[in-house]
Amino acid sequence: MSKEIGITVKKAENFSEWYTQVVTKAELADYSSMKGFMILRPYGYSIWERIRECLDRRLKETNHSNAYFPLLIPESFLKKEAEHFKGFTPEVFWVTHAGDNQLTERLAIRPTSETIIYDAYSKWVRSWRDLPLLINVWNSVLRAEITATRPFIRTSEFLWQEGHTVHETKEDADKEVMMILEFYRQLIEDESAVPVLLGYKSEREKFVGALYTTTLEAMMPDGKALQMGTSHNLGQNFSKPFEIKYLGRDETTHYAWTTSWGVSWRIISAMIMLHGDDKGLIIPPRIAPIQVVIVPIYYREGNSRAISDRATQVADQLKKTGFTVHVDSRDQYTPGWKFNEWELKGVPLRLEIGPKDLEKHQVTMVRRDNSQKTMVTDDRILAEVTRILEDIQKNLLAKAKSAMDSSISNAKEYDEFKRILDERGGFIRACWCGDTDCEDTIKAETGATIRTIPLEPEGNLTSCVRCGKTATKVVYFARAY
Amino acid sequence: MSKEIGITVKKAENFSEWYTQVVTKAELADYSSMKGFMILRPYGYSIWERIRECLDRRLKETNHSNAYFPLLIPESFLKKEAEHFKGFTPEVFWVTHAGDNQLTERLAIRPTSETIIYDAYSKWVRSWRDLPLLINVWNSVLRAEITATRPFIRTSEFLWQEGHTVHETKEDADKEVMMILEFYRQLIEDESAVPVLLGYKSEREKFVGALYTTTLEAMMPDGKALQMGTSHNLGQNFSKPFEIKYLGRDETTHYAWTTSWGVSWRIISAMIMLHGDDKGLIIPPRIAPIQVVIVPIYYREGNSRAISDRATQVADQLKKTGFTVHVDSRDQYTPGWKFNEWELKGVPLRLEIGPKDLEKHQVTMVRRDNSQKTMVTDDRILAEVTRILEDIQKNLLAKAKSAMDSSISNAKEYDEFKRILDERGGFIRACWCGDTDCEDTIKAETGATIRTIPLEPEGNLTSCVRCGKTATKVVYFARAY
Repeated sequence: MSKEIGITVKKAENFSEWYTQVVTKAELADYSSMKGFMILRPYGYSIWERIRECLDRRLKETNHSNAYFPLLIPESFLKKEAEHFKGFTPEVFWVTHAGDNQLTERLAIRPTSETIIYDAYSKWVRSWRDLPLLINVWNSVLRAEITATRPFIRTSEFLWQEGHTVHETKEDADKEVMMILEFYRQLIEDESAVPVLLGYKSEREKFVGALYTTTLEAMMPDGKALQMGTSHNLGQNFSKPFEIKYLGRDETTHYAWTTSWGVSWRIISAMIMLHGDDKGLIIPPRIAPIQVVIVPIYYREGNSRAISDRATQVADQLKKTGFTVHVDSRDQYTPGWKFNEWELKGVPLRLEIGPKDLEKHQVTMVRRDNSQKTMVTDDRILAEVTRILEDIQKNLLAKAKSAMDSSISNAKEYDEFKRILDERGGFIRACWCGDTDCEDTIKAETGATIRTIPLEPEGNLTSCVRCGKTATKVVYFARAY
Repeated sequence: MSKEIGITVKKAENFSEWYTQVVTKAELADYSSMKGFMILRPYGYSIWERIRECLDRRLKETNHSNAYFPLLIPESFLKKEAEHFKGFTPEVFWVTHAGDNQLTERLAIRPTSETIIYDAYSKWVRSWRDLPLLINVWNSVLRAEITATRPFIRTSEFLWQEGHTVHETKEDADKEVMMILEFYRQLIEDESAVPVLLGYKSEREKFVGALYTTTLEAMMPDGKALQMGTSHNLGQNFSKPFEIKYLGRDETTHYAWTTSWGVSWRIISAMIMLHGDDKGLIIPPRIAPIQVVIVPIYYREGNSRAISDRATQVADQLKKTGFTVHVDSRDQYTPGWKFNEWELKGVPLRLEIGPKDLEKHQVTMVRRDNSQKTMVTDDRILAEVTRILEDIQKNLLAKAKSAMDSSISNAKEYDEFKRILDERGGFIRACWCGDTDCEDTIKAETGATIRTIPLEPEGNLTSCVRCGKTATKVVYFARAY
């Protein structure tokens, strides 16, 4: 593979450039001529399709339905929840004209859809019999990014899902928030092999307009945290201004309780950064659009037909069991060139079938995660592919989990806190007084924010890492994307 | 079912009001507070998901991939193809600000994505080896509608797919256009049971910027045609301004040939209008989100458990074979109320299981399309469900096909042409001189447009129905949505 096509920098030496090269050279995404906007190319989109399928299945099993709501939101809707409006207004794209006509009211391109969805919910919800209302939307949202574009992490438009549910009681809404958090954990850890810390956001970091926000936080190899998804209990903060009321079992009218939650294509960025290596991507088998690539190897003209027939046979056998398999039968490239390309694209398992394999009734299997090569006799192909893909999935998560665990430091003193941040980054577990001003000062002085407050309080409260006052919580700080 | 919940007008008496009631009362869609915009509710979205699956499968089988491109398009891109810009500019929503900052260039919310996609293609296409490039996008596009909103037919935002392909030669592009046209026909006729006329658009009616446009035209019960989808050969009209060039097999540089094609949620509107009746929707089994609804009927407390167990058993048996089944076990509604609701929602087949059915080892089946009721013994349930659903599918298409066929009139004289239009509408098959001015006059005087020019020229050319000059084509006119 020519230099131009392969990755030309080492992950350990120039992480940022390595990331950009993997994204563009593996053809996951491309920069658009529209500054700040990204194109999701077919290979990247097919990973997104897998992620979507994994979550969509769980949502449908628990009676959530998909729907679609308008892209444009009247400014007056956004203003109904004051905090929410304040939070989003600096990043909203505003539509002012339709054709040659100036609009009487500015329209926002949705930065998130709470307001336009809740306007509809106020018409649909009448009685406790209508609840819970469990709707999810797969769409794109726009938030103007003034800083540099980073594919999948920081772009002015991104693909995501936003769930919006309505409940009778706070307890029902709490349960929904936690069930979704667990679905997200399964999607992110079990399927994308990205380990996360689960917990609450602080008052300062919570979703604008929420009662509370739960979050999943991953740690990247450069020591910076990446927020992977959030699930919010919005309390009655939106149901009141939007008049989402229901006649209760007690025959009186109540304001409903709502939740919202979302994950985006950002999951793909964590997957790239955590698992990729100097050769390119490594995609966890459960979300890989191609799990097995078969490369037929012809040395002599004579047996090329027999080899390509065998490749198709093996592919069909694996497909029948549910694996996604691609046979690379292109003539214009050498086997070596193909190996490099599929390694760059992170296909977890490669099968080679050459004349010797044919003779010995075997195939050669090469794992993408550790380059291990094994010969497997024909009768054991299915069992071995199953075993190896499961092992790769486990191996990727275990490696990433051990990296995240060893990124966690404890800090008791503010100097130590700052030193760790500068020297190695990662999560810093520290005591905090619970005061937002103190949190603000830490952010201003170090760039670190509270990424998450553990779901179950962690023990040994001493004094706040910065101000020395009595601590109320043990929390995890980090610099973040 | 109370009057408020059921359809209160007859389809034959007030078609327009009937349509609106079916759409909103069956909870397919709702009007948004944003004038001109529609909400696709969960039930409607689940039909859209079925339509999407049907087409997506065919596209993937023929090596098309999905991708995602930015929502916003710089004004300068739109201007590159002059005709295209002129065609869309009256309906474009313009973004002028991001947060508080005025943008240096106005951005259009995509009315269609040719321009931003071709800008990317110009970077991706280098050699004939990169061709064909076959990409599809499922997204929403916005075109400001100043006239009244009609759900699924006329809204300022709609869900659709847009395919954009690049080829070496005109012939390859022709083949793609025709293959997609056939996929659309299968989706619309075979799956949605909506019969169509296939053909070319006239120069006047073709897509702005296309070499030629092919179309699928359906006929609604009110005598107006509905365009169901289009597939365009764009020639080199976009590849030249956007510089999509490739190094050919002959080692010289060529401009590529491109196609684009789309179908939208409008398919749902034709399905509603053609198949629905005074009770509500009738959804063709192949695109029905629920194919079979099972209503357990308890007369006495004593056997309710046995009946609901049997309902679940039957449902599981049908689900295993791939049918989508819903058991309506709600306690707060009577069986009669449920029958009405599922009829309103157009579920093609209802199974009732009551005490007598349990005793006789049978279920009662009621078809939505003709209200036929049959008792089916337990051992024949699967076979009968399969047979009846197939029969409903066939029956819906046959009825609609016969209605379309009998809507077609021949007109030789202009007076006759106008009389038919006013008296019964439908398609008018007529000879035409081929002149755009003549076509414009017909439109101005009668409101009818050339819906389609048959793929294979139809015979007996005499003189143009309006101007009397020698005819060059037999074409189909109609008033249209």
